[in-house]
Amino acid sequence: MGRISLRKLLYKKDVAPVLHGIINAIGSSVTIEDAGGAVLLTANDDAAKTSRSPVTVSGDIIGWVIGDGKTAPIASMIAYLAGMESERRNLADETLNKYKEINLLYNMAEKVSSCLDPGEVAKLVIDETKKFIDGSGTSLKLLNEETGELETITSCGNECNAHTTAAPDKGIEGSIFTTGKAEIVNDVLADPRYVAGENKVSSMICAPLKIKDKVIGTIKISSENPINYTAEHLKLLNTIASQAAAAIENARLYDELKEAFFTTVYTLAETIEKRDPYTGGHTKRVMEYSLAIGRVLALSEEDMTRLKLSAILHDIGKIGVKDSVLLKAGKLTDEEFDEIKRHAVYGEEILAHIKQLKNIIPGVKYHHEKYNGKGYPDGLKEEEIDITARIIAVADSFDAMTSSRPYREGLSLDIAFEELRKHAGTQFDPDVVTAFFAADVIEAFFEANARGKFFS
Amino acid sequence: MGRISLRKLLYKKDVAPVLHGIINAIGSSVTIEDAGGAVLLTANDDAAKTSRSPVTVSGDIIGWVIGDGKTAPIASMIAYLAGMESERRNLADETLNKYKEINLLYNMAEKVSSCLDPGEVAKLVIDETKKFIDGSGTSLKLLNEETGELETITSCGNECNAHTTAAPDKGIEGSIFTTGKAEIVNDVLADPRYVAGENKVSSMICAPLKIKDKVIGTIKISSENPINYTAEHLKLLNTIASQAAAAIENARLYDELKEAFFTTVYTLAETIEKRDPYTGGHTKRVMEYSLAIGRVLALSEEDMTRLKLSAILHDIGKIGVKDSVLLKAGKLTDEEFDEIKRHAVYGEEILAHIKQLKNIIPGVKYHHEKYNGKGYPDGLKEEEIDITARIIAVADSFDAMTSSRPYREGLSLDIAFEELRKHAGTQFDPDVVTAFFAADVIEAFFEANARGKFFS
Repeated sequence: MGRISLRKLLYKKDVAPVLHGIINAIGSSVTIEDAGGAVLLTANDDAAKTSRSPVTVSGDIIGWVIGDGKTAPIASMIAYLAGMESERRNLADETLNKYKEINLLYNMAEKVSSCLDPGEVAKLVIDETKKFIDGSGTSLKLLNEETGELETITSCGNECNAHTTAAPDKGIEGSIFTTGKAEIVNDVLADPRYVAGENKVSSMICAPLKIKDKVIGTIKISSENPINYTAEHLKLLNTIASQAAAAIENARLYDELKEAFFTTVYTLAETIEKRDPYTGGHTKRVMEYSLAIGRVLALSEEDMTRLKLSAILHDIGKIGVKDSVLLKAGKLTDEEFDEIKRHAVYGEEILAHIKQLKNIIPGVKYHHEKYNGKGYPDGLKEEEIDITARIIAVADSFDAMTSSRPYREGLSLDIAFEELRKHAGTQFDPDVVTAFFAADVIEAFFEANARGKFFS
Repeated sequence: MGRISLRKLLYKKDVAPVLHGIINAIGSSVTIEDAGGAVLLTANDDAAKTSRSPVTVSGDIIGWVIGDGKTAPIASMIAYLAGMESERRNLADETLNKYKEINLLYNMAEKVSSCLDPGEVAKLVIDETKKFIDGSGTSLKLLNEETGELETITSCGNECNAHTTAAPDKGIEGSIFTTGKAEIVNDVLADPRYVAGENKVSSMICAPLKIKDKVIGTIKISSENPINYTAEHLKLLNTIASQAAAAIENARLYDELKEAFFTTVYTLAETIEKRDPYTGGHTKRVMEYSLAIGRVLALSEEDMTRLKLSAILHDIGKIGVKDSVLLKAGKLTDEEFDEIKRHAVYGEEILAHIKQLKNIIPGVKYHHEKYNGKGYPDGLKEEEIDITARIIAVADSFDAMTSSRPYREGLSLDIAFEELRKHAGTQFDPDVVTAFFAADVIEAFFEANARGKFFS
């Protein structure tokens, strides 16, 4: 509660005349002083002053009314006015705070609901939560359904030192996850559920992330120094948690669909390429080499997505080439070679039926163009060839050279590297070849194979 | 503003002693009456009463102070106290309203952000908006980027009679869409932008749906009877609009990805089936027949999705069968026939690599099982065969019978229908055959072909 200034109160334009009217009606001599003894008002100063009455607000003396005995009620009146003023001010503060809270919550809701990346949603939620509730650390954990553990998705402050995973049935957070009920624990170390190894914090407030009746995780704010978290904090955190849970679940659904999309397209592409049940390798390697090169060239996110999908589907057109030609072990006739070359255009024809994939046609159609204009199908050169096609050309050739085929052994890495260098500027875009070596694609490939998830 | 009761004010436990103290200090005879003349308080009633001073709050007389001339300041004092009380009460009301608004807005935000269907998001937003702002109609329109028109996505009340599309540069709503600025129009018919044909409403309030700086649509509330919409309404509608825009955009992204997924899988499946550039038909027909049957059987949403995808991919395993066998025009040897039959298992092997599609394996692997247990690959019978496989078996056979192949003409519809009836209970699940006829699949197929969007 802000302290009331007696001076300001007495000089308020609607208080002053009321006060003077009353003083005149009483007719006594009056002096009003503030708590420090400064005179704020005097009236009828000729008469005797025999009494000092304090002006008290919430137990604090904010000033004095000095006069004869009859002036004491003036002190009560001023005290009442000051009390009203203080109450009004508190209410105004509360209203203002509610407005601020609405704005903050609404900003959060808008940011959160326009985001389809689960990790980013979690980060946004944590960042915004810090603005509402004090603490030295915050964290958001989600249940990993495969491992059965609560995994820290994002955290900051002292919660950064927390274990990155936790059992969903142990410790305070585990108990909140299991019961699905938000809690304030203002003395963490004294809580019987506290287990050694948990972050040593003094106070915490933690809410479950719930979708309907299913708990998917927890959100926690904690403080190293004791804090008295209140029911108001808890209510706020619950509100944030329910918003966060909905947005995270949405983002996860989007993520799963994206993953399903890429994995399915990839598997079908491998299947088509191999013309027999999945034994793949080429598609994946070309994709990983291409992505590694794309990262070095700092392609935009949109171009990286185009690159991914066109690398996966670069040979899709081979479905249009007959077995007898495609699988022929001996030397191809000119006619047969022309037939093989047609796969680039077949690829375009297939993709033309998928409006959402039209933007990957250049990568698929032109991955056999050469930088000097001597490639196929259109004899494009240099920048005329889409960047994704120039990248796939290098990745594809490198994998073709280093893989064994029915009719020949694969080249050694050294010889393949030498070939890329030799043809930089003629067959290949020299910048892409430079990026290929900077990317350390071999490492990228092994890393990719170790990844659990097909696309990050 | 609620009217202040003078009686309640004077008897408040912290007002009464202050008032009595002042009256005693003044020492005059005083009577206080309310506006109706009822006496609320009398003091020192023995002296003369020569004056009547009104107690005025916001221009209203709420009572009288009657006494000698010296008592007039008491009226001013009480008026001041009443004014304070009224202000305090308004502030308290405002705070309460803000609390209610937070709860309502938050409920909306939570509902909206947990929804990934654009039409459903729009409906939720409209339903919630009605709770906040009075009107006889509401509508939400989105720009259809293909037609360039504002399309009504959802509406209610008098807005239901509105044109379902509107030009984005005409009329009041068009102007709000174009400028991206929310507006109140309290006299619609007098607005120079009003064009005949627009809904005849008296007042409206309309806000653009914006993603960053891009306007994607509008949300409108209107009233047949004149209403004085205020800046407060406008602010609220803007808040709702920004939340709605974010959620709708998210839902649309999800929808687009889903569409891309299905279209791509479908196109690749057709491509694989045809082994030459897209000329398809079988995959689409089997899918549409299957979905029509599934709807009659009232499958769950989850089963319908499984049915869709397994129908699309039912022959994916044929990629593993050699051209020489698959494309052979003459009679197959037993060995070659065994090779063909293997496509069911090849299908399983391919799909096993896509964890998100594992649940469609039964539909793909078992679409050649027979109801009597004499099919392949596992000789399952009746309910042992997944419902999706039993449906696809009927759809697939019907299409095989009615399509022309290199080595024979397709059967007439009548003969094909007769074949299905004849084999119901032996080759086919009799309930599925019944559903096939109830579904009128031929009509379903032609309807499907007329649809712009691949999946609804």
